[in-house]
Amino acid sequence: MTRTVIESKTKTVTIGFDEPFCVIGERINPTGRKKLAAELEAGDFSTVEKDALEQVACGAMVLDVNAGVVYNSNPNPNETEPPLMVKMLELVQALVDVPLCIDSSVPAALEAGLAACHGRPLLNSVTGEEERLELVLPLVKKYNVPVVAISNDDTGISEDPDVRFAVAKKIVERAADFGIPAHDIVVDPLVMPVGAMASAGQQVFTLVRRLRDELGVNTTCGASNISFGLPNRHGINAAFLPMAIGAGMTSAIMNPVRHVEMEAIKAANFLANHDPNGAEWIRFARVLEAMKDGTSFPDAARAAAEAGSGRGRGGAGRRRRA
Amino acid sequence: MTRTVIESKTKTVTIGFDEPFCVIGERINPTGRKKLAAELEAGDFSTVEKDALEQVACGAMVLDVNAGVVYNSNPNPNETEPPLMVKMLELVQALVDVPLCIDSSVPAALEAGLAACHGRPLLNSVTGEEERLELVLPLVKKYNVPVVAISNDDTGISEDPDVRFAVAKKIVERAADFGIPAHDIVVDPLVMPVGAMASAGQQVFTLVRRLRDELGVNTTCGASNISFGLPNRHGINAAFLPMAIGAGMTSAIMNPVRHVEMEAIKAANFLANHDPNGAEWIRFARVLEAMKDGTSFPDAARAAAEAGSGRGRGGAGRRRRA
Repeated sequence: MTRTVIESKTKTVTIGFDEPFCVIGERINPTGRKKLAAELEAGDFSTVEKDALEQVACGAMVLDVNAGVVYNSNPNPNETEPPLMVKMLELVQALVDVPLCIDSSVPAALEAGLAACHGRPLLNSVTGEEERLELVLPLVKKYNVPVVAISNDDTGISEDPDVRFAVAKKIVERAADFGIPAHDIVVDPLVMPVGAMASAGQQVFTLVRRLRDELGVNTTCGASNISFGLPNRHGINAAFLPMAIGAGMTSAIMNPVRHVEMEAIKAANFLANHDPNGAEWIRFARVLEAMKDGTSFPDAARAAAEAGSGRGRGGAGRRRRA
Repeated sequence: MTRTVIESKTKTVTIGFDEPFCVIGERINPTGRKKLAAELEAGDFSTVEKDALEQVACGAMVLDVNAGVVYNSNPNPNETEPPLMVKMLELVQALVDVPLCIDSSVPAALEAGLAACHGRPLLNSVTGEEERLELVLPLVKKYNVPVVAISNDDTGISEDPDVRFAVAKKIVERAADFGIPAHDIVVDPLVMPVGAMASAGQQVFTLVRRLRDELGVNTTCGASNISFGLPNRHGINAAFLPMAIGAGMTSAIMNPVRHVEMEAIKAANFLANHDPNGAEWIRFARVLEAMKDGTSFPDAARAAAEAGSGRGRGGAGRRRRA
């Protein structure tokens, strides 16, 4: 069975066909978050800290860390991103104990991150582009880490799922040339918006099955892309994730602070027989119950975790359930 | 492609691999509804009328009608159920235009219903029990209607999915002996509660695939059984339905007045490429939006249908959206 092992200093997370779906928290990423980008350039890491704690409280098993800020003072990310990545990784791993995912398109930032990270982080990402293959795969080999492989290449992102499968196959084969095993490749088959391409959902489900059956690899995706541009996006995402899990998808890079999506994943884990006795489902149902009085999802999740661990803060007015 | 055609006097519904999921409304059934049972014995059909209208407004494509009341005044259902079934069917088909599903364990009630029903109703049900096969299949042949086939037999309900598949296969073969084609058999593979049997979800998904690939039949289920005994049942149901649809399930007998489950089905239809341009999803998102001020799901759905058809009741205080 394919098992992709990711580690922090103290914690191991396994992505695998027989494991609960691996939720990789996407929030620590300044792309499209102007306020966070400005904070990072100003050396303010308060949002990073908040995002790290909240995501883990809500059930993220791995945290993605992206330092892709284009500074106003220095527009060259090859200079600015590596030290920022190191700073952010150090800060996050001092704060939470989950494994991390080093996310950058700047190879120097990937390598600086690999040197700074404890344990066995996930590298995000390599593509089928020749230049990326030659830059990133040696790092994957040198540091003995797993890597996200995005199925686009020098011709771009194909709308043909057979082409995207072929790109994934090429990356797996090229990795093998470097001595990197298939179980250390987590393929992102690329999720298109179903509002723009009617077959987008079907394509992903078919691709995930093929990637699993024919290449034996784990899979991931930017889950929320499926609902881009549509009304009631959470509703689409909350059906997409169980369907993807049913098709064999084993992880997603997503926002774990959304309870609708997390509820769908917990239910799908249970239905896929990856939640013995439904213990995790019953725990999560208590969190949802606690939200009925207006408590936020992160606060309700934190309170449930404290109650579960016996570390409840007595008198803090938080609901505790046996 | 397998197509099961069900008809009312004016409307055709097709259950099929390339069709939107067929929602069969389960509400018109006195089993476990003491108040409704008492009303029916007293000749009060107001709840039946309300249930018929509400279920269709909420998106039921077919209505199941079950007259299984055990009268206090006469405990013999062979005498009481056939005339009650006829009465209920006549009432429902005068009120709504969707096709009906005649649901009884009393053969005389099935036959009385078949004689009273317009169009081409769905018969619910035959099992693999010898006596049922010999009683029900001749009716199916005589009236040329499709039938729900439940995969238990004289030995009961097997926990082994291979046995349940074998029972379904036996029913399909026996039906063929009567000249009934496989596309007129809608197999219910039997959904066990996942709280009692951890593999219940996986079993159903695997069975549905096999029934489709090996027997070429459509499938249905009592969907809510999956979450029996668990907290936050709607959350389990709302993940189960998309996963079942992803595995190839083509219909369910369920409560369509629950917006959480209906939302999951609409999203899954879209993701399965059975909702051209997402038109149905966008329409449903408006219904959910209209519920935010406290409007009930049936009322919001009715208002949206009226707005969509241009039959809006101006001044009735209902929200109308373009």
